[in-house]
Amino acid sequence: MDKSSHPKNEIERLRRRLDEVDHRILALLNRRMEIAKQIGERKRREAQLIFDPIREEAVIADLIQRNPGSLSEQGIRAIFQEIFSSSRAQQGLLRIGCCCGAAGLLVAQQRFGTSDGYRRIRSAKEGGRLLQSGTIDVLILPKKKLLDLSSFERRTDNARLLSVCGEIDPPRTLADHPMVRSGFYMVQREAEPPQPQEDSKGRKAVFLVGGCSQGAIDQWRDRFGTPWKETDARLETEGAPGKGLFVRLWEAFDPPPLEILWKGCREICGDSAWIVRLGAYPLSVVE
Amino acid sequence: MDKSSHPKNEIERLRRRLDEVDHRILALLNRRMEIAKQIGERKRREAQLIFDPIREEAVIADLIQRNPGSLSEQGIRAIFQEIFSSSRAQQGLLRIGCCCGAAGLLVAQQRFGTSDGYRRIRSAKEGGRLLQSGTIDVLILPKKKLLDLSSFERRTDNARLLSVCGEIDPPRTLADHPMVRSGFYMVQREAEPPQPQEDSKGRKAVFLVGGCSQGAIDQWRDRFGTPWKETDARLETEGAPGKGLFVRLWEAFDPPPLEILWKGCREICGDSAWIVRLGAYPLSVVE
Repeated sequence: MDKSSHPKNEIERLRRRLDEVDHRILALLNRRMEIAKQIGERKRREAQLIFDPIREEAVIADLIQRNPGSLSEQGIRAIFQEIFSSSRAQQGLLRIGCCCGAAGLLVAQQRFGTSDGYRRIRSAKEGGRLLQSGTIDVLILPKKKLLDLSSFERRTDNARLLSVCGEIDPPRTLADHPMVRSGFYMVQREAEPPQPQEDSKGRKAVFLVGGCSQGAIDQWRDRFGTPWKETDARLETEGAPGKGLFVRLWEAFDPPPLEILWKGCREICGDSAWIVRLGAYPLSVVE
Repeated sequence: MDKSSHPKNEIERLRRRLDEVDHRILALLNRRMEIAKQIGERKRREAQLIFDPIREEAVIADLIQRNPGSLSEQGIRAIFQEIFSSSRAQQGLLRIGCCCGAAGLLVAQQRFGTSDGYRRIRSAKEGGRLLQSGTIDVLILPKKKLLDLSSFERRTDNARLLSVCGEIDPPRTLADHPMVRSGFYMVQREAEPPQPQEDSKGRKAVFLVGGCSQGAIDQWRDRFGTPWKETDARLETEGAPGKGLFVRLWEAFDPPPLEILWKGCREICGDSAWIVRLGAYPLSVVE
């Protein structure tokens, strides 16, 4: 047997090729960090946010679409999220608050990568305060806990200070975790919820519908049908149990304009009703 | 103001440069996956393990050392761990069992990346069984739980069927978690514990010292001094409380050869004493 074709030597030869590829990747990563730094300086001048989930999602979708080889979608997403994370750290650390203990941290690191600044948050209320005071930039919390963020008694400015800018699916390994099962929202402080790019395939919007009775909620569901999904989150605000007025959280795919929704809401639920859009974002391409 | 120097346009121009760099990284990643696939095929022919923590650590240490730019050590580690994770997934999924719920999963994903196959394990004993039956390839468990893996009554083959192949520091965000605080071990099934490469800077070895009284343990500590650290893990095996014989877990930096240790162990602790090396591994470069 020729010595060079011995499996051990072959593996060594292939490993040297791997090393060469790794050195070239490392050089490109450093070039990327330099460009990210320049973007960071310009963003600071304009007081723009470091974290731009809509652009990141578009970049990943584009890379997945033009992927020439066998690297999996999951691999592209995971590797580039770590690259974005390092790039953000170069621009000034993104401060991410996570509710729900180690499970929340796990979910957040899967979405953001490990080079950002993480902080554990004891409750949704505390997270809302830290977000509004600018102590954290993004809050990750279980969907079920969104209504605990602040008091959504009626449409208030309060509700518009925070916006849902994305969601994170529950990891399969924690599918039996009661709080994690329905997934997580990413929440930012912003007067105007960010709009997904026009060319993105599908967008999801998150709405609060309040001041409605149970009967009106049922009518609402019939009217808007399947693209509307009521989440687990609900608050009873007034009246006797079972007869009160509710605040509910709804998710909708490609919803009609807000004016049409406001009109429909008043028709179905009456004058007490209100509806707020808490955010809209493109859906992630892979689960 | 010249239109091209407007900050918005400048950011757009820089983003296009980022995109170009990203496309080149993507092409290299796919080339890497092809090479990894070829290595995987050769490894399968030789029935070698997919996961080679010693080599991975050496590759990362080399990349950190030759890093030409501003990408941080933490960034290199995190990005390349994701790249390795995708490469392993290309070679045949690595099955990683994690004790300690979401905290264990978090720690494992920080070390391995997100493209491997994770499984939650209820107890150290169950993890040991799954490892020995070949259902999982690696077990991640809190240091405190290592002695629960199997019954280390005396030096047995049992102890040599599993080997500690590395450790993971606790993440700062979970420093107050009682089980996570002392860190985690990575355990593999292997007759012979893997040896770190000769040129690695420092190595840590993990030993079981058994059949010793408290007094002998104290003498042992005096003799081997600071490079020996007793861990939290201990088992009392025989005798009245406070007067029994113990099994203890020790960690040592660059320890003397096993023969010298065996001799010292018998001198100090008598005939009942035994010592087993559970593994040796290079230390990670960054915390």
